[in-house]
Amino acid sequence: MSISRLNAGMVGGGPGAMIGPAHRHAMWLDNQYVLTAGVFARNPRVSAEFAESLGVERVYDDYRQMADQEAGRLDVVAVVTPNDTHFEIARAFLEKGISVVCEKPLTNDSQTAAELVAIADKTGAILAVPQIYSAYAMVRHAARMVRNGDLGRIRFVAAEFPSGWASAPLEQWRMDPGIGGAASAVGDVGVHAFHLLRYITGLEASRISAELTTLVPGRPVFDNATIRLTLSNGAPATLWATMAATGHEHGLNIRVFGDDASLHWRQEDPHHLTVRDPDGGATILTQGMTRLSDDAKRLTRVGLGHPEGFIEAFANFYLDLAEMLRGNAVRDLSIPTGVDGLIGVRFVEAAITSHTADGAWVALP
Amino acid sequence: MSISRLNAGMVGGGPGAMIGPAHRHAMWLDNQYVLTAGVFARNPRVSAEFAESLGVERVYDDYRQMADQEAGRLDVVAVVTPNDTHFEIARAFLEKGISVVCEKPLTNDSQTAAELVAIADKTGAILAVPQIYSAYAMVRHAARMVRNGDLGRIRFVAAEFPSGWASAPLEQWRMDPGIGGAASAVGDVGVHAFHLLRYITGLEASRISAELTTLVPGRPVFDNATIRLTLSNGAPATLWATMAATGHEHGLNIRVFGDDASLHWRQEDPHHLTVRDPDGGATILTQGMTRLSDDAKRLTRVGLGHPEGFIEAFANFYLDLAEMLRGNAVRDLSIPTGVDGLIGVRFVEAAITSHTADGAWVALP
Amino acid sequence: MSISRLNAGMVGGGPGAMIGPAHRHAMWLDNQYVLTAGVFARNPRVSAEFAESLGVERVYDDYRQMADQEAGRLDVVAVVTPNDTHFEIARAFLEKGISVVCEKPLTNDSQTAAELVAIADKTGAILAVPQIYSAYAMVRHAARMVRNGDLGRIRFVAAEFPSGWASAPLEQWRMDPGIGGAASAVGDVGVHAFHLLRYITGLEASRISAELTTLVPGRPVFDNATIRLTLSNGAPATLWATMAATGHEHGLNIRVFGDDASLHWRQEDPHHLTVRDPDGGATILTQGMTRLSDDAKRLTRVGLGHPEGFIEAFANFYLDLAEMLRGNAVRDLSIPTGVDGLIGVRFVEAAITSHTADGAWVALP
Amino acid sequence: MSISRLNAGMVGGGPGAMIGPAHRHAMWLDNQYVLTAGVFARNPRVSAEFAESLGVERVYDDYRQMADQEAGRLDVVAVVTPNDTHFEIARAFLEKGISVVCEKPLTNDSQTAAELVAIADKTGAILAVPQIYSAYAMVRHAARMVRNGDLGRIRFVAAEFPSGWASAPLEQWRMDPGIGGAASAVGDVGVHAFHLLRYITGLEASRISAELTTLVPGRPVFDNATIRLTLSNGAPATLWATMAATGHEHGLNIRVFGDDASLHWRQEDPHHLTVRDPDGGATILTQGMTRLSDDAKRLTRVGLGHPEGFIEAFANFYLDLAEMLRGNAVRDLSIPTGVDGLIGVRFVEAAITSHTADGAWVALP
Repeated sequence: MSISRLNAGMVGGGPGAMIGPAHRHAMWLDNQYVLTAGVFARNPRVSAEFAESLGVERVYDDYRQMADQEAGRLDVVAVVTPNDTHFEIARAFLEKGISVVCEKPLTNDSQTAAELVAIADKTGAILAVPQIYSAYAMVRHAARMVRNGDLGRIRFVAAEFPSGWASAPLEQWRMDPGIGGAASAVGDVGVHAFHLLRYITGLEASRISAELTTLVPGRPVFDNATIRLTLSNGAPATLWATMAATGHEHGLNIRVFGDDASLHWRQEDPHHLTVRDPDGGATILTQGMTRLSDDAKRLTRVGLGHPEGFIEAFANFYLDLAEMLRGNAVRDLSIPTGVDGLIGVRFVEAAITSHTADGAWVALP
Repeated sequence: MSISRLNAGMVGGGPGAMIGPAHRHAMWLDNQYVLTAGVFARNPRVSAEFAESLGVERVYDDYRQMADQEAGRLDVVAVVTPNDTHFEIARAFLEKGISVVCEKPLTNDSQTAAELVAIADKTGAILAVPQIYSAYAMVRHAARMVRNGDLGRIRFVAAEFPSGWASAPLEQWRMDPGIGGAASAVGDVGVHAFHLLRYITGLEASRISAELTTLVPGRPVFDNATIRLTLSNGAPATLWATMAATGHEHGLNIRVFGDDASLHWRQEDPHHLTVRDPDGGATILTQGMTRLSDDAKRLTRVGLGHPEGFIEAFANFYLDLAEMLRGNAVRDLSIPTGVDGLIGVRFVEAAITSHTADGAWVALP
Repeated sequence: MSISRLNAGMVGGGPGAMIGPAHRHAMWLDNQYVLTAGVFARNPRVSAEFAESLGVERVYDDYRQMADQEAGRLDVVAVVTPNDTHFEIARAFLEKGISVVCEKPLTNDSQTAAELVAIADKTGAILAVPQIYSAYAMVRHAARMVRNGDLGRIRFVAAEFPSGWASAPLEQWRMDPGIGGAASAVGDVGVHAFHLLRYITGLEASRISAELTTLVPGRPVFDNATIRLTLSNGAPATLWATMAATGHEHGLNIRVFGDDASLHWRQEDPHHLTVRDPDGGATILTQGMTRLSDDAKRLTRVGLGHPEGFIEAFANFYLDLAEMLRGNAVRDLSIPTGVDGLIGVRFVEAAITSHTADGAWVALP
Repeated sequence: MSISRLNAGMVGGGPGAMIGPAHRHAMWLDNQYVLTAGVFARNPRVSAEFAESLGVERVYDDYRQMADQEAGRLDVVAVVTPNDTHFEIARAFLEKGISVVCEKPLTNDSQTAAELVAIADKTGAILAVPQIYSAYAMVRHAARMVRNGDLGRIRFVAAEFPSGWASAPLEQWRMDPGIGGAASAVGDVGVHAFHLLRYITGLEASRISAELTTLVPGRPVFDNATIRLTLSNGAPATLWATMAATGHEHGLNIRVFGDDASLHWRQEDPHHLTVRDPDGGATILTQGMTRLSDDAKRLTRVGLGHPEGFIEAFANFYLDLAEMLRGNAVRDLSIPTGVDGLIGVRFVEAAITSHTADGAWVALP
């Protein structure tokens, strides 16, 4: 813990927004950030009133103005706007040397995503992508177990994000292919499962085969995706993502199978991690246990048996980001950055390419 | 219940066999069958001693002799030998007009499987295939719910059988491609998941795309399969089957998503069925509840809260078979017969064809 | 397995009976018993027709006649009649030297229960009490773990049987205090939890304190009991039993806490056993695992992952009984006999005594 | 949400403290409080350094000094010191008209607890007691269901807090009877279960009977308590509390049985609530569902499927407190205040009285 808190800004996340509040709670939870500037809505008056309700000191009419005037003042800005605006907004801040937390998908195409990565590299700003699920303490522990060799060689991975949030024909901007892309199931939820797979296993995907379908009749985007992957160690994997899994709360979960053991983590019960040994026995690890790795322990705020949830995971992301913003050495199990976001965008593009070719295998760069 | 019990025979299932005992417990549980004849092992002395230990009156040196002499005496014979012998043995009995319960896969190729179906049709004998999981009371209830329209249009199905039984390099006859076929993961476990999908949804698969892989190094068969399906109503589906899911007890489970609700059934907790409605609420139905369908109720032997397991499901199969053997009208939700076994064999063949063509879609007849 | 099956009889268990069918399935499942004689109903014609439907050869008008004529023919008779008739019927068979399986509670008072034990001792007949839950493989494993010292000193036990079967004012014979006794919650369900506690821990209760209440208004018996126990090693314990736990399937479960570990077993998920170590980690053991004790293994019919349920537990009871009837050495973890039934009856009596004294502690003999 | 944040102070909660951090995270999470003053440790230098690390502006050498100088400046102070100091510290602030959040047990005897309540009444300061578990959204929903009559008449309640945090002989201040009282299991954990019972059912306890025992040999306090209660509607209830439940994570849970339905809530899975209807069906409600009551909805920060945990519940407490501090009308389902704390202390005293009288029933005032 340090005395001086970091200055944060936000673009988007105004009245009625879904993900903006999560960012703010996450910044506040550990008292490491002060939200000092922002553009919260396209309408300046709405934006100003919202800023005032949050106690945000400096509010701007648009993000360009904000980028101009906040250079040297803000430590970081969170971009939580619709997908098709990420590129322009993130670029504006990165070019001024202001670090950016940009919601996923980083952009809607890999060329612009790569450009953001390049700009960040050039200006020395940090570009972080809040694929939050890897910031859960028990996901970190899972990743450490794999790194430690506790599972042996990884032989198969089954990653899923069968969400039910759009199982009824309830349309909104995420279902507009012009804003969120046509492969909504991949870009909206699939990338989370893909990131989790990469994060826990430490493996990349060398090629994929995808089938994209639309489960809710009349929907203009693909809301379901079944994807096969070949991982960088040669192991096969499977990934299923949808927003139309009727009745599901959330659904993100991953099963990683090694030669010596397997593990299972579910976002709906995030403070547990199930480890299975070849004899069929299951051991349930719980956040707060003394035997866990330091990666899990350092992200645990309250004692064993007091569940920490999604906002705590989000706050873990911001804690690690704070370390980076303060110039500390980056841990080997830290947060996803622009490169991870770029890999996610390439994953979406490859899924579309494969689907268009009737499920043919497509190599990932 | 009737006074006179049915006369049953068995080929295979001798000392150390895995599935033979399950057939016998299932025959005995409801006291509807007497096991009166058999060939239990290739070695006649072993076979005779085993028969005596079971109280089986008539034991034969080989199945041809048994088929010759038991015509008109046996009501049914269970064939529980290695896969590559199913065809010859089942044919011998069917040709004599003796009904046959033949373990899956019915045969190792669809031509012989079709031949068995044709012989049974000709002689009037019943050919039943013990894909037992559809005989669980709660699977029957699930199938009835779909038939009743409780789920609305089926939009997606995720069927899995990720077993851990062969996650270590423990080789045996099932891993001999010459005996069990090369696509072991499909023929050994995948067909169960496929049957469950067909049984519950009442839909057929019109085409599939398969990737077959080997998770345990050096294994001469494919022990892992990820399969995409297009169902007869146009809905996509996915199926994952393996015997190398390290640490798994069993793993068979199915999730069926309709426009109005979804359901989830797991073989490891077979007396429950979870139904989810679009709001995210989950209702857990339990075998023995008064509100269940007659399909579930008639297969429930003890009251609510007293779990019935695998042997009871197997016995349900034999109860339905007994009705058929006694000439009763066949229920619309009854047991799988030769045609189902044939469809299973075609599924295995199509999986191999697709895999060989790098995952191309293959139509099912 | 032996060639010759045992001859069994039954008194009670006719059309519409609840527990009679469970006994019969349990006898049949392993093919160790033939049901050859019985009195299934008070009405001789009903009884005879029922016997015929079961294929039972010899049917009698009443149990006295049966006892007279079956001496030397029957190996064992199951008494599955209402509680208040147990004594007379069991005595009739025991006096003829016929072994008896008598449903619990053994009788409605400890004097007659002790008399049955004494008669069995004198005639050498076996008197067994089907408190079936201790015959589950995983309960046997739990008992073995305690015997092995895996839990260390037992420090506390919480046993519960909060059933929901009579949560509505649905009256029947079990709710007639003249038939089943006034302390219905203790005599009907509580004794099962008490037996499980004794069986797993190997400890006796030295004293108890009970509060008996009636949850369903107007019910003439106590349908709820909260009981404190002091165990023979000085450890405290608690037991809660009711038939009026609205919405519960079954409810029987036990948590045993030792200095070094604790375990949890639930009848609704009987093939699992959860073991917790002091760090808060939970290990879930499953029936069929190779690491389990022989006590569990020898009672496992099908492989890992194929659940065995209530009928299998019942059949385990009859398997152990068969060993005893055949004169084999009795295992240290076997089935409950008359003495256990007597201890159960004394437990019921002590509960009533304590309740009448406003919850005062009452010593158990 | 309002612009101006509330000024909060803290006494206790310095380096190594357990509950202090939870209070701070809870204050910060929703950005409604600024921690501006405090005494964090007995050693002034430690306290000052800790204050600086938190960015707390005003630090004092002792609480009296702080109370004197903060009157009119602080909106509320959190007292998170050892139990035996609560009275003096809380009194000092209340007498200055400063609202107090005082950790439970409010004090170690009902006389001083009542005095605190009286002082708060007199000065108009708010005295709140952070029995946090009633601030979980799903506990609020449970309480609303009971108020709505969804369960019918309450017939029985089973409340438990079998924690494993002190299952090994790890002694510390909580185990010093001079600091935390002799009835540690009741005062430390039992009061949480008792509060939950009162909060959800809306019923009081009219009398209790308690047995206090020590599970860990040599421990100078009672670490286990089994308590019977008669509720104000005449229904019986049971409560079990311990800190020595080997292997348990946390353990707090409650089952409430009504004539028409029952419900079950577990702190280890706090975003779910299980409702059971008389037929044996279980419905699992999840935080974030649209069908939930406003009491649950208004305390839900992120969408369905994103678990909120202990810190969020704690923050809910502080949100409701903020409403009270700002003079808003108090909701009927709000946070526990001094009277609830006093009732908790009386409960502890009655448990000791009953235990001393060998479990005799003791009336609660």
